[in-house]
Amino acid sequence: MPTQFDPPSGTRDFLAREYETRERAFTLIRSVFSRYGFEPLATPAFERLDVLMGKYGDESDKLIFKILRRGEHEGTGEADLALRYDLTVPLARVAAAYGSQLPVPYKRYAIGPVWRADRPGRGRYREFVQCDVDTLGTASPLADAEVVCAVHDVLDGLGVSGFRFLLNSRRVLAGLLDAFGVPAGLGAGVLITLDKLDKLTPSQVIAELTGRGLSEAKAGELVAAMTAPDAAERIREALKSSEEGSAGLDEVDTMLSLLAGQMPAERVQFTPRMVRGLSYYTGPIWEVTADGVPGSIASGGRYDHLIEQLGGPDVPGTGGSLGIERILLALPADDGGHSRLDVAVTVMDERFAARSFAFAAAARSAGLRASVYLGSSGKLGRQLKWASDQGARWALIYGGADEEAGTVTVRDMTSGEQSAVPASELAAHLAGLAGRS
Amino acid sequence: MPTQFDPPSGTRDFLAREYETRERAFTLIRSVFSRYGFEPLATPAFERLDVLMGKYGDESDKLIFKILRRGEHEGTGEADLALRYDLTVPLARVAAAYGSQLPVPYKRYAIGPVWRADRPGRGRYREFVQCDVDTLGTASPLADAEVVCAVHDVLDGLGVSGFRFLLNSRRVLAGLLDAFGVPAGLGAGVLITLDKLDKLTPSQVIAELTGRGLSEAKAGELVAAMTAPDAAERIREALKSSEEGSAGLDEVDTMLSLLAGQMPAERVQFTPRMVRGLSYYTGPIWEVTADGVPGSIASGGRYDHLIEQLGGPDVPGTGGSLGIERILLALPADDGGHSRLDVAVTVMDERFAARSFAFAAAARSAGLRASVYLGSSGKLGRQLKWASDQGARWALIYGGADEEAGTVTVRDMTSGEQSAVPASELAAHLAGLAGRS
Repeated sequence: MPTQFDPPSGTRDFLAREYETRERAFTLIRSVFSRYGFEPLATPAFERLDVLMGKYGDESDKLIFKILRRGEHEGTGEADLALRYDLTVPLARVAAAYGSQLPVPYKRYAIGPVWRADRPGRGRYREFVQCDVDTLGTASPLADAEVVCAVHDVLDGLGVSGFRFLLNSRRVLAGLLDAFGVPAGLGAGVLITLDKLDKLTPSQVIAELTGRGLSEAKAGELVAAMTAPDAAERIREALKSSEEGSAGLDEVDTMLSLLAGQMPAERVQFTPRMVRGLSYYTGPIWEVTADGVPGSIASGGRYDHLIEQLGGPDVPGTGGSLGIERILLALPADDGGHSRLDVAVTVMDERFAARSFAFAAAARSAGLRASVYLGSSGKLGRQLKWASDQGARWALIYGGADEEAGTVTVRDMTSGEQSAVPASELAAHLAGLAGRS
Repeated sequence: MPTQFDPPSGTRDFLAREYETRERAFTLIRSVFSRYGFEPLATPAFERLDVLMGKYGDESDKLIFKILRRGEHEGTGEADLALRYDLTVPLARVAAAYGSQLPVPYKRYAIGPVWRADRPGRGRYREFVQCDVDTLGTASPLADAEVVCAVHDVLDGLGVSGFRFLLNSRRVLAGLLDAFGVPAGLGAGVLITLDKLDKLTPSQVIAELTGRGLSEAKAGELVAAMTAPDAAERIREALKSSEEGSAGLDEVDTMLSLLAGQMPAERVQFTPRMVRGLSYYTGPIWEVTADGVPGSIASGGRYDHLIEQLGGPDVPGTGGSLGIERILLALPADDGGHSRLDVAVTVMDERFAARSFAFAAAARSAGLRASVYLGSSGKLGRQLKWASDQGARWALIYGGADEEAGTVTVRDMTSGEQSAVPASELAAHLAGLAGRS
């Protein structure tokens, strides 16, 4: 049950452990995209309201978080700003704003939260991170393939198991309608239904197709071709009868040949039924599925007019989006132990507090995480309990005998073994211990 | 002049170069705080409106960005959420929400944007990053000193030049009023005026003090003591006559002794006039000034009742905040060259595109940033121009001769020298070149 101290509905607090898991993933993603020559872009959390409204369709517009005008205008109840709904509209605005300052092609990635007033549910949040990679300004199929390779390397690097790219082209879909003689007015609906072949039985799909007005014969023919054991071959044959279909096949085959050397063959599959929900794609399209994860964990494609539609310049574009929240949920859990410190420095006597500070600094200079004891107990047992709670590997103890000998006692928190180390050699000693383990 | 494509007033887009400068700073900050055993915390961009309102004072409440209710409630013009105004109120909420799950003491850092509807101006933004480090749950002076050490290491690591900590205590300030016999009702105002001794002349300060109702004699006495060449000694003497003053001096001296071994002596200075604007501090307070930067670049102190006032549990706390936007502005500028790629892979023949992909992958496997040419020109000159624009150190060229010999041509973009390298040895060859330079 939510309490007054919970974060707002659909949002999350990330404490240390979860934060670090996420940050590790983001760091890997940044590093892979950077190695491909994509550059980072960060835009504000909110945009002017008119930049966002009317770009996503009526239903989505309702999910935009709007920000009330301020000061004397607050009473009007009007909004002038809104939290960003995705990272693509801001990209279009940036492409318009900085046009000539941007390299051509402009290869950028963006990782950041977006906000949608969706009904919160399992794995569905109102604040969630999107992770996009896009290339604007080139029609080259190499750009499409490069995005797929980069996304592949990210998924591989994150350790996602059993993932594969489903590859198709909008022109293949147009060719399909053409080759099977689907009436023009029914095309969009037929494609949407065909895309359900991974969830519904063939007869359910046929029923839905005829419900949309397609003749039973055509519906049966289409579904039979797409579900046959040799579907890919049959579809390829059918497509060759259509100009658009042939062009689509060429796109797919170019992609397949570019990807062949970059990933295991079983990780890419021509999937003629695959549509992608959104209507803005114009060329190759792809999505990634993974074992045991419902839906897709990444998707993308070529969208040669989208940036203009979103208020940007008329440039071709291709890109992809990682469903990073979904991917994070699917990754194997951490091994359990959460360590806050490597070195816990006890403070047995207030007079020695400055010494403890110096020991902690020495440990840090050896690249270790170290903290002095900040509690009020002067008892060694209590302080060692604290060291253990922190997951520290070593505790440092400094008492009267150490003071006389100019040493500090290093206690191995696992074995309990203790050794006196000359204070001046502490950093080197700890670095040695850390390097050895 | 703002155009329709600019980000909203007071916000910024961060393109690659600025993004990377900022990210490098954030990475360093995270790493220093982590080495001190502070753990990260991330909270949502917005909080429930009632969590934020009434916590910052009436003037600040007006600067809070409020989010309109959604759906059928949008028409009411009411807000139910608001963008966070700082990182401290969310910390208080988290301390209340996760109390027993948090370690004691809870040492956390947070780096993230906050939003304030201030009038935008030079260096003043409506979206800006705050960077806080706090320890909750201990009254130990070691915790105060540890925060100062961590902030010191961050500033040192960032390369901020000529910075120093001004150190004081709220109890020193109370002791001052006591020792100089300032009437109770005038105390707060007198302190605020005294804090202007770094900006106004002594006589201006005296005038303002008498304007506040302090006798001319007392005002003169106070200002004389605080501006004398031996001010620190005179203030120390005066404070000893007051119980609160003596306790404050002890706090300051404890801090000074703990910090002594951790930073050069000239970097910490007892500054009795220093007040800190906010009224919530209860113990040691500090701020950091730097050469050529107006105002402070970091500040903090002990606030033993703040978390409770902000809606959290009644725990003592101490912490600091880095003025990271101001610090970033003050850092020396980048050296100029912005390189997007290490290795630029030309595509001289479409038939060889898959080969180019493989070469780029080999370069990446050597840890280098690499991309294939995505433009439409088949001319080597144009592609080398692109390589040069990207700041690439090497270009890879693969032509008919290379195909026959099984080599790839590596061109040094600085010298123009070219050498044919066996394709299978490319990754090792590039790694060698990169290691050597």
